[in-house]
Amino acid sequence: MAGREGGRSVTSKVLLLLEAFESSGSPMTLTQIAAHADVPLPTAHRLVGELVDWGALERDENGRYVVGLRLWEVAQNAGRQLRETARPYLQDLFSLTQETSHLAIREGHEALYIDRVYSSKRVPRASRVGGRLPLHATAVGKILLAFEDPWLREAYVARDLEAPTRHTHVNPARLLLELDSIREQGYATTYEEVRPGSCSIAVPVQREPGHAVAAIGLVMLSTQAAQMERYLPALQGIARRIEPAVARWPLPGSHFR
Amino acid sequence: MAGREGGRSVTSKVLLLLEAFESSGSPMTLTQIAAHADVPLPTAHRLVGELVDWGALERDENGRYVVGLRLWEVAQNAGRQLRETARPYLQDLFSLTQETSHLAIREGHEALYIDRVYSSKRVPRASRVGGRLPLHATAVGKILLAFEDPWLREAYVARDLEAPTRHTHVNPARLLLELDSIREQGYATTYEEVRPGSCSIAVPVQREPGHAVAAIGLVMLSTQAAQMERYLPALQGIARRIEPAVARWPLPGSHFR
Repeated sequence: MAGREGGRSVTSKVLLLLEAFESSGSPMTLTQIAAHADVPLPTAHRLVGELVDWGALERDENGRYVVGLRLWEVAQNAGRQLRETARPYLQDLFSLTQETSHLAIREGHEALYIDRVYSSKRVPRASRVGGRLPLHATAVGKILLAFEDPWLREAYVARDLEAPTRHTHVNPARLLLELDSIREQGYATTYEEVRPGSCSIAVPVQREPGHAVAAIGLVMLSTQAAQMERYLPALQGIARRIEPAVARWPLPGSHFR
Repeated sequence: MAGREGGRSVTSKVLLLLEAFESSGSPMTLTQIAAHADVPLPTAHRLVGELVDWGALERDENGRYVVGLRLWEVAQNAGRQLRETARPYLQDLFSLTQETSHLAIREGHEALYIDRVYSSKRVPRASRVGGRLPLHATAVGKILLAFEDPWLREAYVARDLEAPTRHTHVNPARLLLELDSIREQGYATTYEEVRPGSCSIAVPVQREPGHAVAAIGLVMLSTQAAQMERYLPALQGIARRIEPAVARWPLPGSHFR
């Protein structure tokens, strides 16, 4: 059948090739890409060639492949409204706190970091813009989970929960209780749950009361954990300012996958 | 032939579909996408379906298509090193000037905006992160052109030059002279050349003397044009700080296309 080779469509092969770059930001050889996508080397060679011609991939100085700036340009349109709306507020949050400020949304069972303003302090970082972290291990993630429907919270904690550090809360029953109190108090904190040396605090951005369309938070050195709560007025004030703007957003596809 | 339909490869059709989203950030109907890509509607329907399943495209509330966050995630890897290196310096530049600060590189005959810190002032904006503008109409673009090889400058001005406003400099001979003096004085300015109401100033980020790998600049209200030069020490100081970091970058593919 036209457009199909060996049972899988050409489109799906092209997407599998791009997937190879999803987790790794590192340059890859053709052999590595083909292996990742489980596509025969000659096929990979042809398809990668087309992707390079268009600018979806580029070759670096050593002849290895990286994601191309043209794909980045096209993709900047994704969530643009969301980022452009949030950016000035994140900058305000940073001005008020001088701490790394970020905004995340839920994508499946992870927090997806949409934008961030970096403090020049050397805080151990686990996430990056465009990256994801498990919901239960981060303050923004706990918020996104706490302000979800009960069935979704329960389905989430029923899964095998990763523990990136020995501080990560992974006991399902206790996690549900923690989510309840987060919902009640209106903010979440973590202490070295995703990386030793850092702690975080976050509040919901609510489209309608009780439902978080996004979360904004701060990451700082874990030595500052005792003073985190002093940033709550700034966080909550900024969240209230973002809310009227996000009320008009089309909700991004945040299906569980 | 496998992977080909009607003379064009499936890959090229998929890329044509994505191209439809390159200039426009607006949601599109299937018919609009098919028309843009010049692909029959049934083919577009099938390929767009595969792109949606993967997350390269998403449907909004009205059933129209937008670029998906998953594609954005993958694409964030493009130029990541560049953005992550530049971001703290751009924030410093913004702190020092309180004016919208950005970094651009040359991609073909346009300036591609890689990152930006927004001032809360209401400056008429022509560009956005991931967007492009003609090199001759912007301060960062004039820098990127002025610090290029002479043959490239000449080839550039020999083209038909757009004039987004009546202030845009488009006379080839005078533009070449302007580029010479920009190179000599080490900075470029524009006054309402890309949009009425805004002016800009930029300096090169030099990987080796005389060659700009990027440009950093400020955009402000054109009523401030007379005071633009007072920001030169900040701009040049920040550029000098970025340079040691960029010396290690692999150069992005900045071929003329």
